[in-house]
Amino acid sequence: MQWYFVALLLTFLTSSQGILTTLSQSNGKYLYDYATVPFLAEVFKLVLSSLLFWRECQISPSTRMTTEWKSVRLYVVPSIIYLIHNNVQFATLTYLDTSTYQIMGNLKIVTTGILFRLFLRRRLSNLQWMAIILLAVGTTTSQVKGCGEASCDSLFSAPIQGYMLGAVSACLSALAGVYTEFLMKKNNDSLYWQNVQLYTFGSIFNMARLVLDDYRGGYENGSWWQRLFNGYSITTWMVVLNLGSTGLLVSWLMKYADNIVKVYATSMAMLLTMVWSVYLFSFMPTLQLFLGIIICMMSLHMYFAPPNMLLDLPPQVRAAPESLKEVTVERRADS
Amino acid sequence: MQWYFVALLLTFLTSSQGILTTLSQSNGKYLYDYATVPFLAEVFKLVLSSLLFWRECQISPSTRMTTEWKSVRLYVVPSIIYLIHNNVQFATLTYLDTSTYQIMGNLKIVTTGILFRLFLRRRLSNLQWMAIILLAVGTTTSQVKGCGEASCDSLFSAPIQGYMLGAVSACLSALAGVYTEFLMKKNNDSLYWQNVQLYTFGSIFNMARLVLDDYRGGYENGSWWQRLFNGYSITTWMVVLNLGSTGLLVSWLMKYADNIVKVYATSMAMLLTMVWSVYLFSFMPTLQLFLGIIICMMSLHMYFAPPNMLLDLPPQVRAAPESLKEVTVERRADS
Repeated sequence: MQWYFVALLLTFLTSSQGILTTLSQSNGKYLYDYATVPFLAEVFKLVLSSLLFWRECQISPSTRMTTEWKSVRLYVVPSIIYLIHNNVQFATLTYLDTSTYQIMGNLKIVTTGILFRLFLRRRLSNLQWMAIILLAVGTTTSQVKGCGEASCDSLFSAPIQGYMLGAVSACLSALAGVYTEFLMKKNNDSLYWQNVQLYTFGSIFNMARLVLDDYRGGYENGSWWQRLFNGYSITTWMVVLNLGSTGLLVSWLMKYADNIVKVYATSMAMLLTMVWSVYLFSFMPTLQLFLGIIICMMSLHMYFAPPNMLLDLPPQVRAAPESLKEVTVERRADS
Repeated sequence: MQWYFVALLLTFLTSSQGILTTLSQSNGKYLYDYATVPFLAEVFKLVLSSLLFWRECQISPSTRMTTEWKSVRLYVVPSIIYLIHNNVQFATLTYLDTSTYQIMGNLKIVTTGILFRLFLRRRLSNLQWMAIILLAVGTTTSQVKGCGEASCDSLFSAPIQGYMLGAVSACLSALAGVYTEFLMKKNNDSLYWQNVQLYTFGSIFNMARLVLDDYRGGYENGSWWQRLFNGYSITTWMVVLNLGSTGLLVSWLMKYADNIVKVYATSMAMLLTMVWSVYLFSFMPTLQLFLGIIICMMSLHMYFAPPNMLLDLPPQVRAAPESLKEVTVERRADS
């Protein structure tokens, strides 16, 4: 399977996530407990990965798996990072309004690039750095509140703690991605075995969260397993399957491609969701969405196109007098 | 003189143009006839160029000048294009509101690139084309109406004629620039002699416009020469000098650099004017201005940086398992 095919599939599935979630509501309200969705998605990924791993072991006896506790225990780290991230996210939202929070979320693109460089020691060309910054700028541009939009809180007026927590949140989110890539690539273990470890911890942490929520809520709605499938419709199940599938695709990309590919896929998905919304929910298309799409497309091309496609430099500037040639040479030398 | 020094000076002078014009008003009204300003600027350029040409002829007897009518008559073409452009501009504004017109004005950046390629047959790399498109996107981004701004006409609701005239206007404006570059570079004539020809026609056309305005207005305010300096303050004179100086710098760039350099200088100037306005007239800085500046900076670097600075590609991806290397190779080959 080619990495870009997986990335394309991830883009489409991720972009339909928001749409499906909206469609799963009845009159703008959830009839089911939304917190059970990520838990079921984790379980779905665990079951599917276990089955695939079992089949792989049967087909090829040379399937590689490391079972030492020293290695297995590392797979809990992403779950822990996500746990901290969720709490930081919660704290951030007490300082920032949701639209400022959404804008700050684009910082994740840049922090992923930085941690990718620092933690995984992967080099990027100047042009690729510029592409990453432009991707963040492009997604931000598409989210600029246009005139006539109802809520219009100022972006620069939140308390400083809000921005700092937003930055911490962006770092944690990037760290989880980069650490997962490190785990998936650190040895040649079977992808399915690595997934089994990841999603076992994932399921446990998600379950713990449901238990804790029940405890905090004083068991008002009963225990989580009693209301697990309450109010689930076909669409709700599609949300679960979608979330689970995107998780599996991300896991594949972490092993066979990298975090930057994932960041591009999810950023493009965000823009695609906005385009869907224009058609499905008759949102007004804005100039900033249009500009954001152009910027992100340019960024995509800058990052992934081979250098000789980008820079088929002219052999020599033509039809120009001597003076211009001189200037052109100066430019090359001085800039 | 280096081209980038001239470009920088042009950026600063152009950015102060809008500020000076605003400062030359009294209580938001012009006490002088604004139509006389471009005429006086044309005369200023003609006088200065004539003096410099005269001195050049005295210093070096080998100063080159072509005086055949076949060559001289070509210098009227930019004036004619500007005349048509002014009328198209006027027609466009009957269909488009000013903010849509301003947004459409950014199209000039792209049409200049296209005519630069077609008319002057200058090659640009893919990356440079992307940089030009990003420059137009960046300036447009900075102009997106934010929430809370008073006038908020929809961008996509004007009659189709408006957009078509806007596009024609962008082409004419680009054509004038590209044709001037062609004139300046077609032979090794003295820059000052070329300027004398350009500005003679420029002065005549500007004067004709004043005469025509008087005729249309039924000489209500008397003849144009009677009110030429009426209400002129020091600031008004600075506007004239500024307009004249930027014209001379553009002329220099057309001969020794090119239209794209000019387009970058004037686009950066537009952003700089918005930054000045934040300080001088306490405008609120917007997120879109900030994003626009980043995009234009990236574009500038993409267009002018030498290729080896942009693409110091890593010798080989490190610390990655065999599988990734394979994928990386695939990516290079397929994308």
